[in-house]
Amino acid sequence: MGRSVTRSLTVDALAARLGARVVGDGSLVIRGVANLESAGLGDLSFCVDTKHRAAAVASAASVMILREEDVAVNSCTRIVHPHPHSAFAKALDALFPADPVVAGISPTADVDASALTASARVDALASIGARTSIGAGSHIHPHVSIGADVVIGSDCVIYSGARIYPGVRLGDRCIVHSGAVIGSDGFGFQPSAQGWQKVAQVGGVVIGNDVEIGANTAIDRGAIEDTIIGNGVKIDNLVQIAHNCRIGDHTAIAGCAGLAGSSVVGARCMIGGAAMVVGHLSICDDVVISGGSLVASSITAPGRYTSVFPITEHRTWMKIAAGLRRSGK
Amino acid sequence: MGRSVTRSLTVDALAARLGARVVGDGSLVIRGVANLESAGLGDLSFCVDTKHRAAAVASAASVMILREEDVAVNSCTRIVHPHPHSAFAKALDALFPADPVVAGISPTADVDASALTASARVDALASIGARTSIGAGSHIHPHVSIGADVVIGSDCVIYSGARIYPGVRLGDRCIVHSGAVIGSDGFGFQPSAQGWQKVAQVGGVVIGNDVEIGANTAIDRGAIEDTIIGNGVKIDNLVQIAHNCRIGDHTAIAGCAGLAGSSVVGARCMIGGAAMVVGHLSICDDVVISGGSLVASSITAPGRYTSVFPITEHRTWMKIAAGLRRSGK
Amino acid sequence: MGRSVTRSLTVDALAARLGARVVGDGSLVIRGVANLESAGLGDLSFCVDTKHRAAAVASAASVMILREEDVAVNSCTRIVHPHPHSAFAKALDALFPADPVVAGISPTADVDASALTASARVDALASIGARTSIGAGSHIHPHVSIGADVVIGSDCVIYSGARIYPGVRLGDRCIVHSGAVIGSDGFGFQPSAQGWQKVAQVGGVVIGNDVEIGANTAIDRGAIEDTIIGNGVKIDNLVQIAHNCRIGDHTAIAGCAGLAGSSVVGARCMIGGAAMVVGHLSICDDVVISGGSLVASSITAPGRYTSVFPITEHRTWMKIAAGLRRSGK
Repeated sequence: MGRSVTRSLTVDALAARLGARVVGDGSLVIRGVANLESAGLGDLSFCVDTKHRAAAVASAASVMILREEDVAVNSCTRIVHPHPHSAFAKALDALFPADPVVAGISPTADVDASALTASARVDALASIGARTSIGAGSHIHPHVSIGADVVIGSDCVIYSGARIYPGVRLGDRCIVHSGAVIGSDGFGFQPSAQGWQKVAQVGGVVIGNDVEIGANTAIDRGAIEDTIIGNGVKIDNLVQIAHNCRIGDHTAIAGCAGLAGSSVVGARCMIGGAAMVVGHLSICDDVVISGGSLVASSITAPGRYTSVFPITEHRTWMKIAAGLRRSGK
Repeated sequence: MGRSVTRSLTVDALAARLGARVVGDGSLVIRGVANLESAGLGDLSFCVDTKHRAAAVASAASVMILREEDVAVNSCTRIVHPHPHSAFAKALDALFPADPVVAGISPTADVDASALTASARVDALASIGARTSIGAGSHIHPHVSIGADVVIGSDCVIYSGARIYPGVRLGDRCIVHSGAVIGSDGFGFQPSAQGWQKVAQVGGVVIGNDVEIGANTAIDRGAIEDTIIGNGVKIDNLVQIAHNCRIGDHTAIAGCAGLAGSSVVGARCMIGGAAMVVGHLSICDDVVISGGSLVASSITAPGRYTSVFPITEHRTWMKIAAGLRRSGK
Repeated sequence: MGRSVTRSLTVDALAARLGARVVGDGSLVIRGVANLESAGLGDLSFCVDTKHRAAAVASAASVMILREEDVAVNSCTRIVHPHPHSAFAKALDALFPADPVVAGISPTADVDASALTASARVDALASIGARTSIGAGSHIHPHVSIGADVVIGSDCVIYSGARIYPGVRLGDRCIVHSGAVIGSDGFGFQPSAQGWQKVAQVGGVVIGNDVEIGANTAIDRGAIEDTIIGNGVKIDNLVQIAHNCRIGDHTAIAGCAGLAGSSVVGARCMIGGAAMVVGHLSICDDVVISGGSLVASSITAPGRYTSVFPITEHRTWMKIAAGLRRSGK
């Protein structure tokens, strides 16, 4: 019993979109999508590779996307594609098409008279500041706050309750999830006789095209220069990007990770969940940081890096920890 | 000087509600609550167990909930109960009764005409989408955004600025704190020649009864299937629950913890603060994960597990770390 | 090419404000600010100390704040000051003056008739509860929710979408960034035969003067007593402060850190990013916790403490981890 699609397609129609070959009944109508294990009558599923062959053999899916070498695993209707997961992602876009964005400003939104939002959709109770420009086809959900002098490109989706401080710039086709905050002050203070003296944060945030920013993630504005997020960067939920960070194109940062101030991360890196990067260091292109690791010095060679204590039963841990403590004496 | 109660009760009236015995003046009126250390005239306090006996001896509380074996620690009025902390929790409910929820829709709320909210309270500036249903006695605070096709059970409290994406389902008596986001897209991408290709997240989120979700916590919708949170699950602040997670009944997850995609956590587990669970693994029932630990492989036996480097003075740490680095050569 | 200032000043005018000596052309007008590396014509920059001398020599800045001993590094106009970074911070305040706060309530804000906001500015779509008082010169941005019986001092800035629960008290000159939640329920539950029993959280939150609270940070109300944040405390983004914590004056807490329930942190401490403090323990004054460290027992002597596994290439890590596992047998 899969998830019902919002637009039914025949297998032949879908395969034509994917440029893929059909084995079996191409006139069958796809009515749902599901994992191999839970798929049933009318459902489309997919078999990524050899690891999933047993599940594919047992699956009750009506249609399956799979590789040429796996074509015999099941006698259902098959769509043969060299990259089944990627083809399945494209299938989802066809079976769950996004509603077209109808431009218009809700009467309960608070939009400054000088804002440019002509071809955008602005939902109820959103707030948009002076001189801010929202590109064509962008959709601002309810309760979004956008400050003054912001530039948002075309075809962006800003989900409810996201906050964009003044002067931030986003490219085209960006997705910002609920509760994300972009452009808050960096954590900049100088010691003084009266305690911490705030250092005004006068930089901005510049975000490229095709960037996705997860729920409740925070991206601070730069101290003087801009915080920069490259094209195609994907940031998960509850991630902290401090002031002056620069993140290269197509880097992905998983949930709960944090980048301290002035971290520079290269292109095509993968920062694992809850990984932390200490400030004022740089990570070169094509580096993978394991989840939960703390990067405390610059990394200059591609590869995978790790700094995680191995998990054990608590009793065993106590022995290991005691040994480590002795080694420090 | 304790916290003033919002409804005064005599000791006898309170003890009757608790089914507990009174030693001393039962006609005394309880006017405040406090810890043993700060309690004074008119205040109710409690002594959990032997560890707190010294504080109980010294306490100036007028009334104390304590166990039979501790009854002699103080000559104030005493309420004798086998579980003092639990009895104190019930006393708080009696002394600080919640205001009854008066149904009604604020004129500044934006509620879709097709939403069903007849017996709920919807506060100022909240937004509720099409076909969404809010159960009787539920209270939607200001600035909450609830998308289309959401189902919220009865007697829920959704605090200001919580975000509930379309299609999410909550059971009865749930509490969602400010800034929590439920139903945002999972972090699903496929590599492609053009960079990361978004995989549409078409699953939902199904949350059981009596679930509490902390401030600024994020729970992603499933990729295809639903993300599932069992009955009685308690989730603290700033927790990340990624797509397709399944969390068993009565599990508690402390602040800053994170569960990566497709983690399966059993019933009655306790996940410590800032603990992280790597994706695509499972934890059986009745497991305790120590705070700050990273679970990188499945756990199949109940018990406590830990993966934390022991804290030391920084100088000592440098020696230990140098020794570890040598051991890797 | 630096950041353009919003108010131009001559070098002489700025130096007079800083009480500093000018070397070179004091009539020069400062038009921008920049780091040494990117500064150009008309830009002010600064050289903190000897580490930055090479950059100062090469810099194209028109004006530089530097120490007496570095005065010869560049022939541009120089402002001589013993603490260049601190002087630069003051210069930013002069060159980017904050707009004066004009008192007034937006017609789309929802302000309870009993609230006292006469000399404050309340922006569009904000919500303010009964009997709440906002001090003179404070600025409440759009979409802020403030509950009943809250007290906010004078000259505070509460950014869009911050949430302040009923009964919370803030001092003067506080800054609360977007998405921060203050006063949510602590994570208090008692085990019972029916699962976790909620313990009502009847304490409050008391925040001193000159406190800054970062984006999406959460501070829970106390269980019975108050959660207390001292004067001059600076808290970064995505920080969790659990119920009953007490934080001493001028302590700074970096992003993604977490303090579990009833932690007591002294004055002038520095808690590194993603550091975690286990509950019911205390840290004395003047302690530095390294980023990513977990404090699992009380600290009674000032100094720096660390508990981080050293980062290595993943292959090396596997060897070290295997050795550690052996040491636990």
